[in-house]
Amino acid sequence: MILRPDSLEQVQECVRAANREGRALYPISSGKNRGYGSRVPTSDNCALLDLSRMNRIVDFNEKLGYVTVEPGVTQRQLCAFLAERKSGLWMDATGAGLDCSIIGNTVERGFGHTPYGDHFSNACGLEVVLANGEILQTGFAGLPGARAAEVYRWGVGPSLDGLFSQSNFGIVTRMTVWLMPAPEHYQAFLFQSSEEDSLSRFVERLRPLRMNGTLRSAVHIANDYKVLNGMQQFPEGEAEPLSAAAITGYAGKLGFGRWNGSGGLYGTRRQVAEARRLVRLALSGSVTKLQFLDERMLRIAARFKTQYRWFTGLDLTRTLELVRPVFGLMKGVPTDQPMASVYWRKKTPIPRDPDPERDRCGLMWFAPVAPSDGESVRQLADIAEHTLREFGFEPMISMTMITERSVASVISITYDREVEGEDDKAMNCFVQLRSRLAVKGYYPYRLGIQDMDLLDADPVRKAFLSAIRKATDPGNVLAPGRYLTPDSKA
Amino acid sequence: MILRPDSLEQVQECVRAANREGRALYPISSGKNRGYGSRVPTSDNCALLDLSRMNRIVDFNEKLGYVTVEPGVTQRQLCAFLAERKSGLWMDATGAGLDCSIIGNTVERGFGHTPYGDHFSNACGLEVVLANGEILQTGFAGLPGARAAEVYRWGVGPSLDGLFSQSNFGIVTRMTVWLMPAPEHYQAFLFQSSEEDSLSRFVERLRPLRMNGTLRSAVHIANDYKVLNGMQQFPEGEAEPLSAAAITGYAGKLGFGRWNGSGGLYGTRRQVAEARRLVRLALSGSVTKLQFLDERMLRIAARFKTQYRWFTGLDLTRTLELVRPVFGLMKGVPTDQPMASVYWRKKTPIPRDPDPERDRCGLMWFAPVAPSDGESVRQLADIAEHTLREFGFEPMISMTMITERSVASVISITYDREVEGEDDKAMNCFVQLRSRLAVKGYYPYRLGIQDMDLLDADPVRKAFLSAIRKATDPGNVLAPGRYLTPDSKA
Repeated sequence: MILRPDSLEQVQECVRAANREGRALYPISSGKNRGYGSRVPTSDNCALLDLSRMNRIVDFNEKLGYVTVEPGVTQRQLCAFLAERKSGLWMDATGAGLDCSIIGNTVERGFGHTPYGDHFSNACGLEVVLANGEILQTGFAGLPGARAAEVYRWGVGPSLDGLFSQSNFGIVTRMTVWLMPAPEHYQAFLFQSSEEDSLSRFVERLRPLRMNGTLRSAVHIANDYKVLNGMQQFPEGEAEPLSAAAITGYAGKLGFGRWNGSGGLYGTRRQVAEARRLVRLALSGSVTKLQFLDERMLRIAARFKTQYRWFTGLDLTRTLELVRPVFGLMKGVPTDQPMASVYWRKKTPIPRDPDPERDRCGLMWFAPVAPSDGESVRQLADIAEHTLREFGFEPMISMTMITERSVASVISITYDREVEGEDDKAMNCFVQLRSRLAVKGYYPYRLGIQDMDLLDADPVRKAFLSAIRKATDPGNVLAPGRYLTPDSKA
Repeated sequence: MILRPDSLEQVQECVRAANREGRALYPISSGKNRGYGSRVPTSDNCALLDLSRMNRIVDFNEKLGYVTVEPGVTQRQLCAFLAERKSGLWMDATGAGLDCSIIGNTVERGFGHTPYGDHFSNACGLEVVLANGEILQTGFAGLPGARAAEVYRWGVGPSLDGLFSQSNFGIVTRMTVWLMPAPEHYQAFLFQSSEEDSLSRFVERLRPLRMNGTLRSAVHIANDYKVLNGMQQFPEGEAEPLSAAAITGYAGKLGFGRWNGSGGLYGTRRQVAEARRLVRLALSGSVTKLQFLDERMLRIAARFKTQYRWFTGLDLTRTLELVRPVFGLMKGVPTDQPMASVYWRKKTPIPRDPDPERDRCGLMWFAPVAPSDGESVRQLADIAEHTLREFGFEPMISMTMITERSVASVISITYDREVEGEDDKAMNCFVQLRSRLAVKGYYPYRLGIQDMDLLDADPVRKAFLSAIRKATDPGNVLAPGRYLTPDSKA
């Protein structure tokens, strides 16, 4: 059963009915939690509570830089909203596609690519329907007429925002999201190296710039497989899985490295120029290529790509196609381009209207977090590459320097669900990967629906959360099993 | 009764004993929560649980920039620790004095003056003794061998840090605090204006620089009374309360304005130079004085103050005395200097070893938050000035642009507790102030012990918190009434 409320009152009514009838609800915003289970509930016999019809932008403040949205508001919608108003504000976008819900991604603590990339750190004032049907507001928002509810996250008294992220304690029906003033100037930088060990060097060299505020946004570093996966489907005629020798060949031919990074510089022209100098200094000697790109350069490159081809024999079209979405993401422009990458192992071409679920594309993401030091990221990458190869998958890995001190890796198991046995193989690979990384202390920042029992490893925390659950949702009606497995299992 | 555990195990034992014996505990770290009740419990018949003996610095990482501390670790101690190690890291300091606990201030969500000034945003990995005596760890810390526990705040699953700030749900016995790498260059800027309306103009002009990341730390703006209060005791021979005409006279004589601001610039020399240009541009036309200061300039000024006096007839000594602590705070050096200001109304001189409690200095702070816009801060300041004058107190007000979008005001009611009737007058003034500001939607970011019932204004939130309380602390042993009044009162 799918319920599609279109107002707060209807959500309350659904929750009250669920309590009366002893039925559980599984709330989704847009259901695009790709790689982590999409819209599939964490337990059986749940009615899906689809909030996508609640898609109003209920408040917008250009001066103070925020927008208040309902769960159905998507990246596409907010982007269009800001463009229509010719707003001087940028949103932050994740790579999860145009139809991804802002609230959905934020309460899952997803991240994007601008200085506001840590979504949960840039949101406040949650409106939450509790399991008893009452409406709770976080921060200052619950106090009558509060004026700072949209601008100051903590409010007064215990701060509850965190309790409603990655949890099943309430249904978030409204949230304020901070928006970044468009900088006077924005420049992207792209860098790469063919050396095996360049990943750890990149992290060591760039961490000081992350920590001292020169790099205000995430730096994204992808391995060779991940880059090829972003450019095309599995290359015809090659044997599966694509070997190390083969990927090195493609890297040489298509002009990418063993490890490939990108980041953004934001500010006045002088601030960007100084940041450029510091990035160049930091990466000097560690890269085979370092390129700075801005709007003007991209326009020129697009105009002269034919001439470029005459002179160099290289076709820039492909590179530009690949660079554009990355360049856009770093200025908060959402894109559906990364969705194509899910068709990697499909033998048929990517359709015009990609729909990974319909087309049975297999995708599992695992996103462990490491301290931002060279040794840790090298160890994490080694375990991931080794394990994915062992199970016959190409090891597609990205490492995002998401905060000043931490790196979030996204490891993709990408396969074709229509090939017999691949679902099981992927799951076995996932289980091995998770356990090998846990042994070394690397835990994911976010869980897929198959992975919720990870939190059982901390019995005190689990008991504490279960007590809160029993006290606030005695009927067990909200998303049972989501980030809190049933007690009997503990 | 005062309990002084010196280990985690002893804290657990205290909690278990409290449950057995049906006695409540009121945990304090250093007990220096000045202006908000210091070490006085929120309900009667509590045993004080004084954690000051637990004062170990248990972990320190120069590369990743963090330190893990126990509740007894004070600002003085951390500052000395970093100096001894010749660390390249800065702590952030509040104005609350050298003996203020790092954890105490952070869980109260206090703030300081460097880019890490929002303390709670720069802390993670809490170790908490729950009401049942068990030890809970937040973020990744509870997972076996987790490597990112000190560097990534959210961990996985519901984030619980917020629940243990400004609350009575557990006793924080350990916490990781992030430290800022010392910048290549640091410069302070000081500005002032004699115009009545300069406050709102300052906020309007500087907000864009806060929002675009040029100003990474809080900008502190104080009114004339607050400045004089920082320089000396109540001027002899004047009538109480000090009139508007009188304060304007002192402002002219001593060289401060109606509103007086300070902020810090951090970065490479070029980053600081560009920030200086932008600050100058933003404030141009709105200030009567704008000054940039760095270590070198301060040294020169100190050396030549005698000559300066010959030429100008003005004594720089006083100004330097006043500037030094502010300059130091903006680079994270704690100071006891602000403590002297509490002796404002005392007829005896400030003792060499100030102890406001012993000397019966009266101090109540009220710290409402406003959006960072000119209209709001003007309205807030007007209400505060009007109300304090009405009750016969000098309106001492600061406005701190604490985050990109919000301003936290600190309004000080400073008096002499030895003068008959002043305690009552101060309390009446406080109650009026609170209610007049609430009507306009300005609520404090933090509560004094006399003020905890403010949260009763949000019955849904209160019921939710009470349910958690009952489930996790059925014996009501942890700080009853702290940020959650007893149910009967609701």
